[in-house]
Amino acid sequence: MFDPVEKLKEFIRCPSVSTDPKFKEGMVGAQNFVSGLLGSLGFKVEVVKTDVHPIVLASRGGDPAWPHVVIYGHYDVQPADPLGLWKTKPFEPTVIGNRIYGRGAADNKGPLMTNIAAVAQLLEENPGLPLRITFLIEGEEEIGSPSFPAFLAAYADRLRQADFVYLSDTALPNESQVVITCGLRGLGLFDLIVTGPKGDLHSGLHGGVLRNPIQALAEICATLHTPDARVNVPGFYDDVLEVEPWERAELAKLAGDGKAYMDFLGIDAFYTPPGFSPFEAIRFQPTLEFNGVGGGYQGDGTKTVIPSRAFAKISCRLVPNQEPDKIKGLVMEAIRARTPKGVKVEFVDQHKGDAYVVVPPGRPNTPKDQSPVLARAFRATEAAVTAVWGRPPLYLREGGSVPIIPQIKNATGLDSVMLGLFLPEDNLHAPNESFNLDVMEKGVETAKRILSGITS
Amino acid sequence: MFDPVEKLKEFIRCPSVSTDPKFKEGMVGAQNFVSGLLGSLGFKVEVVKTDVHPIVLASRGGDPAWPHVVIYGHYDVQPADPLGLWKTKPFEPTVIGNRIYGRGAADNKGPLMTNIAAVAQLLEENPGLPLRITFLIEGEEEIGSPSFPAFLAAYADRLRQADFVYLSDTALPNESQVVITCGLRGLGLFDLIVTGPKGDLHSGLHGGVLRNPIQALAEICATLHTPDARVNVPGFYDDVLEVEPWERAELAKLAGDGKAYMDFLGIDAFYTPPGFSPFEAIRFQPTLEFNGVGGGYQGDGTKTVIPSRAFAKISCRLVPNQEPDKIKGLVMEAIRARTPKGVKVEFVDQHKGDAYVVVPPGRPNTPKDQSPVLARAFRATEAAVTAVWGRPPLYLREGGSVPIIPQIKNATGLDSVMLGLFLPEDNLHAPNESFNLDVMEKGVETAKRILSGITS
Repeated sequence: MFDPVEKLKEFIRCPSVSTDPKFKEGMVGAQNFVSGLLGSLGFKVEVVKTDVHPIVLASRGGDPAWPHVVIYGHYDVQPADPLGLWKTKPFEPTVIGNRIYGRGAADNKGPLMTNIAAVAQLLEENPGLPLRITFLIEGEEEIGSPSFPAFLAAYADRLRQADFVYLSDTALPNESQVVITCGLRGLGLFDLIVTGPKGDLHSGLHGGVLRNPIQALAEICATLHTPDARVNVPGFYDDVLEVEPWERAELAKLAGDGKAYMDFLGIDAFYTPPGFSPFEAIRFQPTLEFNGVGGGYQGDGTKTVIPSRAFAKISCRLVPNQEPDKIKGLVMEAIRARTPKGVKVEFVDQHKGDAYVVVPPGRPNTPKDQSPVLARAFRATEAAVTAVWGRPPLYLREGGSVPIIPQIKNATGLDSVMLGLFLPEDNLHAPNESFNLDVMEKGVETAKRILSGITS
Repeated sequence: MFDPVEKLKEFIRCPSVSTDPKFKEGMVGAQNFVSGLLGSLGFKVEVVKTDVHPIVLASRGGDPAWPHVVIYGHYDVQPADPLGLWKTKPFEPTVIGNRIYGRGAADNKGPLMTNIAAVAQLLEENPGLPLRITFLIEGEEEIGSPSFPAFLAAYADRLRQADFVYLSDTALPNESQVVITCGLRGLGLFDLIVTGPKGDLHSGLHGGVLRNPIQALAEICATLHTPDARVNVPGFYDDVLEVEPWERAELAKLAGDGKAYMDFLGIDAFYTPPGFSPFEAIRFQPTLEFNGVGGGYQGDGTKTVIPSRAFAKISCRLVPNQEPDKIKGLVMEAIRARTPKGVKVEFVDQHKGDAYVVVPPGRPNTPKDQSPVLARAFRATEAAVTAVWGRPPLYLREGGSVPIIPQIKNATGLDSVMLGLFLPEDNLHAPNESFNLDVMEKGVETAKRILSGITS
């Protein structure tokens, strides 16, 4: 029988760091490993070349009447640095107790192998399983999936034949509670540059006659929020998807502890918009954040300069129905209107990503035209999780962004069922990353039940 | 007869860059040169050791009834970098037309040599000149005179025997107009650090629940000015010395061209407090400037981080009667009172310097107890400038700071007569520094008349 832990060890041994050209061999190794593994399970494997790292497409066809699931995952990992903080070797998988340590163990090799194992065992038990499956496994997730839009453009027609996407690349809040991620925030980013005098000036010779660009930047940025923590830009909230009462009720079941969260952040007061708890604000409200600011002299001691320019790096986390370019435009327009005389503003556009939401069946806001297979997948997921974990999953939107999910939705119309398998203590993107093997075992059983559940 | 241009060439050939230990030999050379030169003129030379570069004290005694002038200058220069932009070698003095090129030609070797030449020629013509003279020539001016306070503490009693200080280390607005600098702004500097969460945070996972430290910093900084360009800190203006009508009238004679000044700065609007032209604001009003700002991600592209902290480097230019520590305290108090919940502020104190003002005789605000010798020096200066340059000098406060002038005043009670000799086009602190030899010639004649004038 397919042994997911042994296969996961082999997978982790390939040092597939996508951002670092020195790991080219590890990338090829991981891609070959996963292609070979899926080939050995009877899948037809295509390696789709991209500008950076290839995408593995592996399909099991069948009767066009069978449901068709796309299982997403990624074979690349974060760099292992700083190496000195690892207690085991990052690319030497090591099992200690009920955990397997290694870079990528949780993000995403363990969860991906969980789903491959479920498929392998299902097909072993029932070679005639009436389910079409396409594995879509990319190698650029950790570098922002730059090749994904071009891939989607070329393969949208084929992917559109499927019914939904299934993936495990989100989190469990704790070992006993599964979460189905039903929403993701979008992103809109740009830099704001404020220029005053044409060159840096001596603050003694010229101080007192002109508006310092750092002052102007501060004055502009200070207008962008209200005292009660809303974004102070006309139209910013116009398209925000309203929160359904069932979403608040679902989140309430998680019973977040505000005091513990404040301690974790190291702050003595929250700053959330009226009507939203901190746990709600993260998931249901858009933000405007300053990710960086710079200008003038930043070294030790002093330099009595009036700088020529100063900048801020701004990002908005967006919620469903907010359009990134529209929001960027509104913020830029507000900034232009609030720019004082004596300085000029310019913008450097950065990237963007749509928000995403999917509604499980049976909710007041479930789309009337929801795909029956997707509805079945959600029902199968609820049944599987309840049976294996002893309690039903929670359906929650998350604060983060997974740009490929709305990209797939926009290109193909496919929604995603996101079943999280990594835990807060798994140290993703950090030293001593590990994956909980009890979670993996339950995850295999859960995925088997889900995948067979949608065939019935 | 003493040839100031030949002596200046010798002086420039000593590469006396005080900030760079590689120029140790040049510093010793310049110090030896100036000591030797003054010794050869009959002065008693003392080389006063300091923690960094020695101070040269050279005295010509005489009848205690004779007036006693301290002539200040400095033998150190700025670095010559970037060398590639020089058209001549910076430490190879080169005369082209009526200018001598070389690092330090204008700041301060040319003006200092002008005054030495005046003394040399005066004593040559009249060896019995009834004037006591002490040259005080430091080697740390370009690095902020760190040893000067300790020197003053040790030598204050001796310096107190003198009547006033004479120096040429300020500017002429143009070749036909001499300015006597009658005031300097002071300085008070500190860093403001705003801390929010205890570590950097992911803006997706946590954005929307806490006040971003960059936002808090912007909100605090944006409160520190009014829309009409005053500093918005209670008590900030309480001690500001009022501007005398004669000071405004004097400045009006310079006939500053606002449009030309805006073009020079590269701005399209001034930002000056009500009741002050830009030329007045620089000289008569205090400021609060942001010299630097930093926090979060400042590289190319984006990083969706909520930083743990952000900072601003703040400096106030102060006018006479404002006490730097008091003003720093007021600004810090205002900042503390305006700090929103959820972040903490702390301050890193930086340096400070007093403002300075001296009033020429015969003005409505001239101190009743003004030293008669100082009054005579001002009158002699007016007569000398009028005779040599064809028009009387202007008596103006300046926007910059020369910390040693108030330090001398505070330690010894001595006021300074500051007669500028360098021109805006002399490129101080920049490549191709030069000194106008016509100005030098007039300067020697002017100084001779001033120094002999105070004896009569």
